Amino acid sequence: MGAGQKVSLSAKLARFQELWSPKIVGAVNDFHVKLVKLKGAFVWHSHEAEDELFLVLRGRLRMQFRDREEAVEEGELIIVPRGVEHRPVADDEVHVLLLEPSSTVNTGTAGGERTREPEWI
Amino acid sequence: MGAGQKVSLSAKLARFQELWSPKIVGAVNDFHVKLVKLKGAFVWHSHEAEDELFLVLRGRLRMQFRDREEAVEEGELIIVPRGVEHRPVADDEVHVLLLEPSSTVNTGTAGGERTREPEWI
Repeated sequence: MGAGQKVSLSAKLARFQELWSPKIVGAVNDFHVKLVKLKGAFVWHSHEAEDELFLVLRGRLRMQFRDREEAVEEGELIIVPRGVEHRPVADDEVHVLLLEPSSTVNTGTAGGERTREPEWI
Repeated sequence: MGAGQKVSLSAKLARFQELWSPKIVGAVNDFHVKLVKLKGAFVWHSHEAEDELFLVLRGRLRMQFRDREEAVEEGELIIVPRGVEHRPVADDEVHVLLLEPSSTVNTGTAGGERTREPEWI
Protein backbone atom coordinates (compact mmCIF):
# COMPACT_ATOMS: atom_id res chain seq x y z
CA MET A 1 0.00 0.00 0.00
CA GLY A 2 1.47 3.34 -0.98
CA ALA A 3 1.54 6.25 1.44
CA GLY A 4 -1.57 8.35 1.05
CA GLN A 5 -3.56 5.56 -0.61
CA LYS A 6 -7.00 4.93 0.81
CA VAL A 7 -7.81 1.63 2.52
CA SER A 8 -11.23 -0.01 2.45
CA LEU A 9 -11.90 -1.77 5.75
CA SER A 10 -14.42 -4.18 4.20
CA ALA A 11 -12.02 -5.11 1.39
CA LYS A 12 -9.25 -5.79 3.91
CA LEU A 13 -11.61 -7.81 6.14
CA ALA A 14 -12.54 -9.97 3.13
CA ARG A 15 -8.91 -11.01 2.77
CA PHE A 16 -8.71 -13.22 5.87
CA GLN A 17 -10.90 -15.49 7.96
CA GLU A 18 -8.46 -16.42 10.73
CA LEU A 19 -9.67 -15.56 14.22
CA TRP A 20 -7.66 -13.78 16.93
CA SER A 21 -4.86 -12.92 14.52
CA PRO A 22 -4.54 -9.16 14.03
CA LYS A 23 -3.56 -7.95 10.55
CA ILE A 24 -1.85 -4.59 10.06
CA VAL A 25 -3.51 -2.24 7.55
CA GLY A 26 -1.75 1.02 8.35
CA ALA A 27 0.98 2.79 10.29
CA VAL A 28 0.60 6.22 11.88
CA ASN A 29 3.93 7.30 13.35
CA ASP A 30 4.78 4.50 15.82
CA PHE A 31 1.21 3.19 15.95
CA HIS A 32 -0.36 0.40 13.97
CA VAL A 33 -3.92 0.16 12.74
CA LYS A 34 -4.98 -3.48 12.73
CA LEU A 35 -8.07 -5.47 11.84
CA VAL A 36 -9.02 -8.59 13.73
CA LYS A 37 -11.88 -11.09 13.74
CA LEU A 38 -12.89 -12.50 17.09
CA LYS A 39 -15.13 -15.32 18.20
CA GLY A 40 -15.12 -17.00 21.58
CA ALA A 41 -13.05 -15.95 24.58
CA PHE A 42 -9.45 -14.75 24.57
CA VAL A 43 -6.93 -15.06 27.41
CA TRP A 44 -6.76 -12.67 30.34
CA HIS A 45 -3.85 -10.33 29.80
CA SER A 46 -2.58 -6.79 30.14
CA HIS A 47 -0.03 -4.64 28.35
CA GLU A 48 2.77 -3.11 30.38
CA ALA A 49 3.24 0.09 28.40
CA GLU A 50 0.55 0.20 25.73
CA ASP A 51 -2.98 1.52 25.81
CA GLU A 52 -5.18 -0.30 23.32
CA LEU A 53 -8.18 0.98 21.36
CA PHE A 54 -10.91 -1.36 20.10
CA LEU A 55 -13.41 0.06 17.60
CA VAL A 56 -16.21 -2.40 16.83
CA LEU A 57 -17.00 -2.53 13.10
CA ARG A 58 -19.44 -5.44 13.23
CA GLY A 59 -21.10 -7.38 16.04
CA ARG A 60 -20.85 -6.99 19.79
CA LEU A 61 -17.66 -7.23 21.80
CA ARG A 62 -17.83 -8.07 25.49
CA MET A 63 -14.77 -6.52 27.10
CA GLN A 64 -14.30 -8.16 30.46
CA PHE A 65 -12.38 -6.55 33.29
CA ARG A 66 -11.73 -8.24 36.62
CA ASP A 67 -14.61 -6.34 38.23
CA ARG A 68 -17.04 -5.63 35.40
CA GLU A 69 -17.82 -6.00 31.71
CA GLU A 70 -18.55 -3.52 28.91
CA ALA A 71 -20.68 -4.57 25.92
CA VAL A 72 -19.24 -2.63 22.98
CA GLU A 73 -21.51 -2.46 19.96
CA GLU A 74 -20.94 -1.54 16.32
CA GLY A 75 -19.88 2.11 16.08
CA GLU A 76 -18.57 2.16 19.64
CA LEU A 77 -15.00 2.09 20.87
CA ILE A 78 -13.28 1.28 24.11
CA ILE A 79 -9.75 2.15 25.21
CA VAL A 80 -8.11 -0.27 27.63
CA PRO A 81 -5.39 1.53 29.58
CA ARG A 82 -1.97 -0.03 30.00
CA GLY A 83 -1.67 -2.29 33.03
CA VAL A 84 -5.38 -3.12 33.16
CA GLU A 85 -6.23 -6.80 32.90
CA HIS A 86 -8.85 -7.52 30.27
CA ARG A 87 -10.34 -10.36 28.27
CA PRO A 88 -12.20 -9.83 25.00
CA VAL A 89 -15.15 -12.19 24.51
CA ALA A 90 -17.30 -12.52 21.36
CA ASP A 91 -20.43 -14.66 21.50
CA ASP A 92 -20.79 -14.32 17.74
CA GLU A 93 -18.13 -13.22 15.28
CA VAL A 94 -17.00 -9.65 15.84
CA HIS A 95 -14.85 -7.47 13.58
CA VAL A 96 -12.66 -4.92 15.31
CA LEU A 97 -10.30 -2.14 14.32
CA LEU A 98 -7.39 -1.99 16.76
CA LEU A 99 -5.23 1.02 17.30
CA GLU A 100 -2.16 0.59 19.44
CA PRO A 101 1.59 1.19 19.57
CA SER A 102 3.40 -1.03 17.07
CA SER A 103 5.20 -2.69 20.00
CA THR A 104 1.92 -4.21 21.27
CA VAL A 105 1.79 -8.01 21.53
CA ASN A 106 -1.74 -9.44 21.32
CA THR A 107 -1.40 -11.48 24.51
CA GLY A 108 0.48 -8.76 26.40
CA THR A 109 2.55 -9.98 29.32
CA ALA A 110 0.59 -13.26 29.48
CA GLY A 111 2.20 -14.70 26.35
CA GLY A 112 1.45 -18.33 25.51
CA GLU A 113 0.13 -20.26 22.54
CA ARG A 114 -2.33 -17.62 21.39
CA THR A 115 0.42 -15.09 20.75
CA ARG A 116 0.53 -13.98 17.10
CA GLU A 117 3.03 -11.92 15.14
CA PRO A 118 0.85 -9.53 13.14
CA GLU A 119 1.42 -9.37 9.39
CA TRP A 120 0.58 -6.62 6.91
CA ILE A 121 -2.28 -7.27 4.54
CA MET B 1 -15.02 9.69 30.61
CA GLY B 2 -13.49 7.02 32.82
CA ALA B 3 -10.73 4.77 31.59
CA GLY B 4 -12.13 1.61 30.07
CA GLN B 5 -15.57 3.16 29.47
CA LYS B 6 -17.00 2.67 26.03
CA VAL B 7 -17.59 5.63 23.73
CA SER B 8 -20.40 5.83 21.18
CA LEU B 9 -19.24 7.69 18.09
CA SER B 10 -22.79 8.69 17.11
CA ALA B 11 -23.54 10.01 20.60
CA LYS B 12 -20.36 12.08 20.56
CA LEU B 13 -21.08 13.38 17.06
CA ALA B 14 -24.52 14.51 18.23
CA ARG B 15 -22.87 16.80 20.78
CA PHE B 16 -21.47 19.36 18.36
CA GLN B 17 -22.29 20.93 15.01
CA GLU B 18 -19.24 23.15 14.56
CA LEU B 19 -17.30 22.46 11.37
CA TRP B 20 -13.53 22.03 11.07
CA SER B 21 -13.07 21.92 14.85
CA PRO B 22 -11.78 18.52 16.00
CA LYS B 23 -13.08 17.23 19.35
CA ILE B 24 -11.07 14.75 21.40
CA VAL B 25 -12.92 11.58 22.44
CA GLY B 26 -10.04 9.40 23.60
CA ALA B 27 -6.33 9.11 24.33
CA VAL B 28 -4.19 6.08 23.47
CA ASN B 29 -0.70 6.60 24.84
CA ASP B 30 0.46 9.86 23.21
CA PHE B 31 -2.19 9.72 20.48
CA HIS B 32 -5.58 11.37 20.40
CA VAL B 33 -8.75 10.06 18.83
CA LYS B 34 -10.79 12.97 17.53
CA LEU B 35 -14.08 13.48 15.75
CA VAL B 36 -14.58 16.26 13.25
CA LYS B 37 -17.32 17.47 10.92
CA LEU B 38 -16.21 18.90 7.61
CA LYS B 39 -17.93 20.80 4.83
CA GLY B 40 -16.26 22.89 2.17
CA ALA B 41 -12.52 23.18 1.59
CA PHE B 42 -9.80 23.45 4.24
CA VAL B 43 -6.41 25.12 3.87
CA TRP B 44 -3.41 23.47 2.26
CA HIS B 45 -1.07 22.33 5.00
CA SER B 46 1.29 19.63 6.18
CA HIS B 47 2.49 18.35 9.54
CA GLU B 48 6.20 18.35 10.21
CA ALA B 49 6.37 15.30 12.45
CA GLU B 50 2.91 13.74 12.55
CA ASP B 51 1.23 11.22 10.30
CA GLU B 52 -2.53 11.66 10.31
CA LEU B 53 -5.27 9.06 9.87
CA PHE B 54 -8.73 9.97 8.55
CA LEU B 55 -11.46 7.32 8.87
CA VAL B 56 -14.66 8.39 7.12
CA LEU B 57 -17.75 7.62 9.23
CA ARG B 58 -20.28 9.39 7.02
CA GLY B 59 -20.16 10.97 3.58
CA ARG B 60 -17.31 11.30 1.13
CA LEU B 61 -14.02 13.04 1.80
CA ARG B 62 -11.94 14.33 -1.07
CA MET B 63 -8.34 14.33 0.09
CA GLN B 64 -6.37 16.52 -2.24
CA PHE B 65 -2.64 16.23 -2.70
CA ARG B 66 -0.60 18.53 -4.92
CA ASP B 67 -0.58 15.98 -7.73
CA ARG B 68 -3.78 13.98 -7.24
CA GLU B 69 -6.92 13.44 -5.19
CA GLU B 70 -8.35 10.46 -3.30
CA ALA B 71 -12.10 10.12 -2.76
CA VAL B 72 -12.47 8.44 0.63
CA GLU B 73 -15.90 6.94 1.27
CA GLU B 74 -17.65 5.75 4.42
CA GLY B 75 -15.77 2.77 5.88
CA GLU B 76 -12.51 3.78 4.23
CA LEU B 77 -9.45 5.40 5.76
CA ILE B 78 -6.48 7.30 4.47
CA ILE B 79 -3.19 8.01 6.23
CA VAL B 80 -1.43 11.21 5.24
CA PRO B 81 2.29 10.88 5.97
CA ARG B 82 4.13 13.67 7.75
CA GLY B 83 5.52 16.31 5.44
CA VAL B 84 2.97 15.70 2.69
CA GLU B 85 0.87 18.71 1.72
CA HIS B 86 -2.82 17.96 1.71
CA ARG B 87 -6.19 19.68 1.66
CA PRO B 88 -9.40 17.97 2.84
CA VAL B 89 -12.48 18.94 0.82
CA ALA B 90 -16.08 17.93 1.55
CA ASP B 91 -18.77 18.74 -1.03
CA ASP B 92 -21.43 17.67 1.50
CA GLU B 93 -21.00 17.30 5.24
CA VAL B 94 -18.56 14.56 6.16
CA HIS B 95 -17.93 13.00 9.58
CA VAL B 96 -14.42 11.79 10.23
CA LEU B 97 -12.56 9.99 12.99
CA LEU B 98 -9.01 11.33 13.24
CA LEU B 99 -6.16 9.49 14.80
CA GLU B 100 -2.94 11.39 15.29
CA PRO B 101 -0.25 12.26 17.82
CA SER B 102 -1.64 14.57 20.50
CA SER B 103 0.85 17.22 19.37
CA THR B 104 -0.92 17.58 16.01
CA VAL B 105 -2.27 21.04 15.12
CA ASN B 106 -5.15 20.98 12.64
CA THR B 107 -3.55 23.49 10.26
CA GLY B 108 -0.07 22.00 10.63
CA THR B 109 2.77 24.35 9.75
CA ALA B 110 0.41 26.61 7.79
CA GLY B 111 -1.26 28.06 10.90
CA GLY B 112 -3.67 30.93 10.41
CA GLU B 113 -7.25 31.75 11.33
CA ARG B 114 -8.58 28.22 10.90
CA THR B 115 -6.32 26.86 13.63
CA ARG B 116 -8.30 25.30 16.48
CA GLU B 117 -7.29 24.05 19.92
CA PRO B 118 -9.14 20.75 20.23
CA GLU B 119 -11.27 20.24 23.33
CA TRP B 120 -12.44 17.02 24.98
CA ILE B 121 -16.09 16.17 24.62
